[in-house]
Amino acid sequence: MISPDDIRAAARRIAPHIRRTPLATIEAGAFGFDHPVQLKFEFMQHAGSFKPRGAFNNLLSQAVPAAGVAAASGGNHGIAVAHAARALGHKARIFVPVISSPAKIAAIRARGADLEIGGERYADAQAACDAYAAASGALVVHPFDSWATMAGQGTLGLEWEEQSGGELDTLLVATGGGGLIAGIAAWFAGRIRIVSVEPEGSQCLKAALEAGGPVDVGVESLAADSLGARNCGPRVYAVASRFVASAVTVPDRAIRDAQMCAWDRLRVALEPGGATALAALLAGAYRPAPGERIGVLLCGANVSLDSIAA
Amino acid sequence: MISPDDIRAAARRIAPHIRRTPLATIEAGAFGFDHPVQLKFEFMQHAGSFKPRGAFNNLLSQAVPAAGVAAASGGNHGIAVAHAARALGHKARIFVPVISSPAKIAAIRARGADLEIGGERYADAQAACDAYAAASGALVVHPFDSWATMAGQGTLGLEWEEQSGGELDTLLVATGGGGLIAGIAAWFAGRIRIVSVEPEGSQCLKAALEAGGPVDVGVESLAADSLGARNCGPRVYAVASRFVASAVTVPDRAIRDAQMCAWDRLRVALEPGGATALAALLAGAYRPAPGERIGVLLCGANVSLDSIAA
Repeated sequence: MISPDDIRAAARRIAPHIRRTPLATIEAGAFGFDHPVQLKFEFMQHAGSFKPRGAFNNLLSQAVPAAGVAAASGGNHGIAVAHAARALGHKARIFVPVISSPAKIAAIRARGADLEIGGERYADAQAACDAYAAASGALVVHPFDSWATMAGQGTLGLEWEEQSGGELDTLLVATGGGGLIAGIAAWFAGRIRIVSVEPEGSQCLKAALEAGGPVDVGVESLAADSLGARNCGPRVYAVASRFVASAVTVPDRAIRDAQMCAWDRLRVALEPGGATALAALLAGAYRPAPGERIGVLLCGANVSLDSIAA
Repeated sequence: MISPDDIRAAARRIAPHIRRTPLATIEAGAFGFDHPVQLKFEFMQHAGSFKPRGAFNNLLSQAVPAAGVAAASGGNHGIAVAHAARALGHKARIFVPVISSPAKIAAIRARGADLEIGGERYADAQAACDAYAAASGALVVHPFDSWATMAGQGTLGLEWEEQSGGELDTLLVATGGGGLIAGIAAWFAGRIRIVSVEPEGSQCLKAALEAGGPVDVGVESLAADSLGARNCGPRVYAVASRFVASAVTVPDRAIRDAQMCAWDRLRVALEPGGATALAALLAGAYRPAPGERIGVLLCGANVSLDSIAA
C-alpha cells in the first residue's frame, strides 16, 4: 500500500523534473452544466502526459543498473521513461505494441531510446520487455502496478489539492492500467470522491472491482493506445478497491465527441485517453449533484493533430 | 482616447459573455530562459481568439439597427462579431479576404452569419463592408481602430493584472491592426512595459511609430490572416504612440518555429498570429533583462490542426 507520506516524498524527489501544470476553472455553461468545472491541464506535462511523474519517481528511488531501464507501453509510459532516462543519463529500451500511434512512436525515438515494436496488445509488449530484462539485467519500470509508479502519479492529487485550495468534491480520472487513479485516490484517501472512467471496450478496473479482484478483460477501444491494459494488477486493485468511489464507462463515440468538444469550445487538443474523463461528464456517464464541485483530469495529448482536424 | 475607467466599464458590460481565460506560469527553462514566463491562454476564449471582447463591447454599448451588424476581417474578428451577434439576437454580415483560412471561414458560417469572400487583402474586405453598410444602414464593427473595440480588448489587461497579482514587468503582445495592444496599453498606461510584436512582412504599427503617424505598409506574412492590417489608423496610433514601449518584428520562420515549440513543449496548438508574441521571446527579437518578469499573450488558435501536424 502507499500512503500520503509516500506521495509527499515522491513529490519532493521529482520536483526538479516535473512541470506544475495549470489548473483552470471553466465557467458554468461551457460544457452544458450549471456549475464551473475545474480542468487540470496535465497534458501540458513534459512528454505530453502525466507519465513522467511515475517514471522519475521510479528512476530516482531505485538503483539503476548499467544495463539501464526497460518499459512496455502503449506509448505514453514509454515516452516518459525514455524522457526520464535521458534526463538522468541512463540507457532505455522501450517495447510498444503495433497499435501505438505514430505520434507516440516518434516521440520515443526522438528521446533517444531503443525501440521495439511488436505484438497486438500492451500485454504482448510487456512479455517482450520482461524477457529482455531477465536477460540483460535492466530495471523494468512498470506502467501502473508498482508502488513507485503509483506514488509518482499520486503527486497529481497533492498538486491539485494545493492549487484548488480544497474546493473540490469529485475528481473524474481516466483509467488505463489504473496507476494514475490509484495514486490520486491514495493521496485523497477517501476525503473526496474519485471516479474512474474507462472505455466500454477496455475496462479492467471496473471488471476488477466487480469481480472482487484483478481479472483479464478484452481490449478494444479508440483509446486503447493509452487505456488498453488487460489487467490492473494486484497493487492497483488493493488501492482502488479501498479508495475509488465508483467506476463508470463511456463508448468510443463519447470519447471522440469529447475530443471534438475540447477543441471546439476550448481549443485544447487531446488524445482519446486524455479526453475520456471529460467524456463521462459530457455524455452523462457521471452526473454531478446540484452544486457538486467537479474536477476533470485532462491527462494526455500525444496525438497526431491531423487525427483531430475536421 | 480611452481610459482605464472605460475599460472597467467594458469589463462589466461584457462579463456575462466572456470567458476569464487561464493564466499559467511556466517554469524557468521551458523556453530556454532562466526565469518563469507567464502565459495567458486567451486562445481558449469563446470563438478561439480575444476578439469577442471588443465585439461584445461594441454591440452592448451602441444601438444596433434592424439591418444588424457588419464587419470586415481576416477571420477572427469576423468569427467574433458573428458569435456576438448571434448571442445577442442580431443579424450579421461578414466580409473576408480570400486569404482567410478554411478554419476561419467555416467558423463564421457555423455561427449563422452571412459571409462575403472577396479581395486579396484585409483592406479590400473593409471597402466592401463599408459600401454594404452605407447602403443597408448596418452598424460597422471595426476590428481595431475604434474606441469601443479597443476598450473591449483592453479588458484583457485588467484581467491579467488581477490574475497575476501585479507580478509583471513586461507584456509581449502580437499586433495586427493594433486594437488589442492599444487596449492593453491603455489599461496599464505606462505602469508596465508593453511590447508590440509584428511579422517582418506586415508591420503597420512599427511603421507608424517610426513615421510619427499611421502609414500604409505592405502585407506579406504567414500570419497575414490575423496580423494583416495595412494601416493601424489614427485612434490606435494615438494610444500606442503614448503607451507602447517598443515595437519589434519577427520573420515568418520564427512564427512557424513558435507554433511548433508551443505544441512540442506545451501541447498548445496556436494559429500563426497567436504564436507571434511567443516568437519574439524564442527568436530573441525581445531579450528580457535578468529577473524581468515577462508575460506572453497567446491570443488565437483558429487554425486547421492539420497545418500544425508534423
